[in-house]
Amino acid sequence: MPFRKQIKVCFGDIDNAGIVYYPRFMHYFHLAMEEFFMSEMAIDYSDVLHKHNVSLPTVHLEADFRRRLRYGDQINIEVRVINIGRTSIAWGYRGYRLMDEEENVLEGHNVTVCVKTDTFEKTDVPEWLRKGLTNYVERFDNGRPKSG
Amino acid sequence: MPFRKQIKVCFGDIDNAGIVYYPRFMHYFHLAMEEFFMSEMAIDYSDVLHKHNVSLPTVHLEADFRRRLRYGDQINIEVRVINIGRTSIAWGYRGYRLMDEEENVLEGHNVTVCVKTDTFEKTDVPEWLRKGLTNYVERFDNGRPKSG
Amino acid sequence: MPFRKQIKVCFGDIDNAGIVYYPRFMHYFHLAMEEFFMSEMAIDYSDVLHKHNVSLPTVHLEADFRRRLRYGDQINIEVRVINIGRTSIAWGYRGYRLMDEEENVLEGHNVTVCVKTDTFEKTDVPEWLRKGLTNYVERFDNGRPKSG
Amino acid sequence: MPFRKQIKVCFGDIDNAGIVYYPRFMHYFHLAMEEFFMSEMAIDYSDVLHKHNVSLPTVHLEADFRRRLRYGDQINIEVRVINIGRTSIAWGYRGYRLMDEEENVLEGHNVTVCVKTDTFEKTDVPEWLRKGLTNYVERFDNGRPKSG
Repeated sequence: MPFRKQIKVCFGDIDNAGIVYYPRFMHYFHLAMEEFFMSEMAIDYSDVLHKHNVSLPTVHLEADFRRRLRYGDQINIEVRVINIGRTSIAWGYRGYRLMDEEENVLEGHNVTVCVKTDTFEKTDVPEWLRKGLTNYVERFDNGRPKSG
Repeated sequence: MPFRKQIKVCFGDIDNAGIVYYPRFMHYFHLAMEEFFMSEMAIDYSDVLHKHNVSLPTVHLEADFRRRLRYGDQINIEVRVINIGRTSIAWGYRGYRLMDEEENVLEGHNVTVCVKTDTFEKTDVPEWLRKGLTNYVERFDNGRPKSG
Repeated sequence: MPFRKQIKVCFGDIDNAGIVYYPRFMHYFHLAMEEFFMSEMAIDYSDVLHKHNVSLPTVHLEADFRRRLRYGDQINIEVRVINIGRTSIAWGYRGYRLMDEEENVLEGHNVTVCVKTDTFEKTDVPEWLRKGLTNYVERFDNGRPKSG
Repeated sequence: MPFRKQIKVCFGDIDNAGIVYYPRFMHYFHLAMEEFFMSEMAIDYSDVLHKHNVSLPTVHLEADFRRRLRYGDQINIEVRVINIGRTSIAWGYRGYRLMDEEENVLEGHNVTVCVKTDTFEKTDVPEWLRKGLTNYVERFDNGRPKSG
């Protein structure tokens, strides 16, 4: 099963319409991505930035919000690796709310480019990262085998 | 000229890679949309929510981030109305950084649906809102006449 | 032992000086207080607000920040109940960083008043809440007996 | 008159009790302090951090919240310099809401210490900063002459 980060919608996430302020969803995506590194790549994301000198700024983002989320809702954000380019990585996120049955409440993906943290020069996806992500994709695909 | 909201990147918007934390851009979009209502529709957005009982949750979002933004950068977020459907509105945002020359640094659009604030039932775009937005689009198109 | 909420300093909590943006500490306090309700009072904080119609706005706050916190730091926020007045509750928070040894990195307290969520009228601390908090204080004092 | 930063309570500042999420007030204080530097000291706060290599982390904070603030409220945050120590500065903030009459809605102060941005070593308040702050205090006291 792909990596999932459990998040509980907190008091400060709620806006004046009584639902999650939508920029907070991007924060949820980022939280999930940060934990993905520790859980699946066995590296702290701060070490990626500061020891490996690699930052992953987002250059493109798309998201669909299917259900309104309220204070106290429990959601799982699933992280997938959609594509590994020469200098960029495409990530996918799916949010599931834990009710009687699990329900897909949001979905998104973003594209990050690799840059050096200190100079912000574009750089190739480092080999260790490519290997780790590829490995994750393979495990993930094993977990959900393509039919055929 | 379409409505523009001037924003200065503040200290708390910056992340650990030294640039704007990308969920903050969606907050910028929202700030611009809120001010658009007062500036162009002559209504406070809180009155839209609470007096007119209309909320505008986002159901779809796309964005491109072309330049990294740093602390202290001045940007203008331009708000456009791309489409007015029966129950939904599509909004466009373009961010320009004020340097020697103005530079397009980010671009996005989102789709909001009209719901009743108290029940969250989907509802038609209210007539006053449709009229106001249509009027804005016409003024905007006058400002940037289609060639042909 | 008093209730503790474990928090990991996330990417978006960090400011342009490379440390936790200090308003985020108040967010940590609030997160800890929210979880305290579920963990120690067996009630969801959103139910306090919306089913019991009780809100707890903060009217006073004091805090000391003893160590700078960085991205990735693990901290535990301990919640204590300092005083239960007729309409107000005083809460204490202590933050401990998990390093080789646990280190006290921040400390604060705030005073909340009880108001009705719908009207914002001041109201007495409800009996169920007073009882629950008193019970917590007693357990907590048992856990750390006063010498003498 | 002391420096004032005008802030409009925005949609995302509001919490699930319908009022400003109190950690946001500390963000308001910080925004006011950032603008104070440009307005009164003629220096961008980012230049303080990165050109002068001086950061001002908060080590102590106190605040009182006298009125609940709602979406759309306009407030002015006044910045005062309470004390200039060898390595620390004490700042005062007063928030006024613009209604029929101006109303004091919140008040706070914090103590910041001077550290080098790159090493986080404690350092003396730089002479240029001490001079600028002293000058501001003198102008401010002229504006509100002590009786006697």
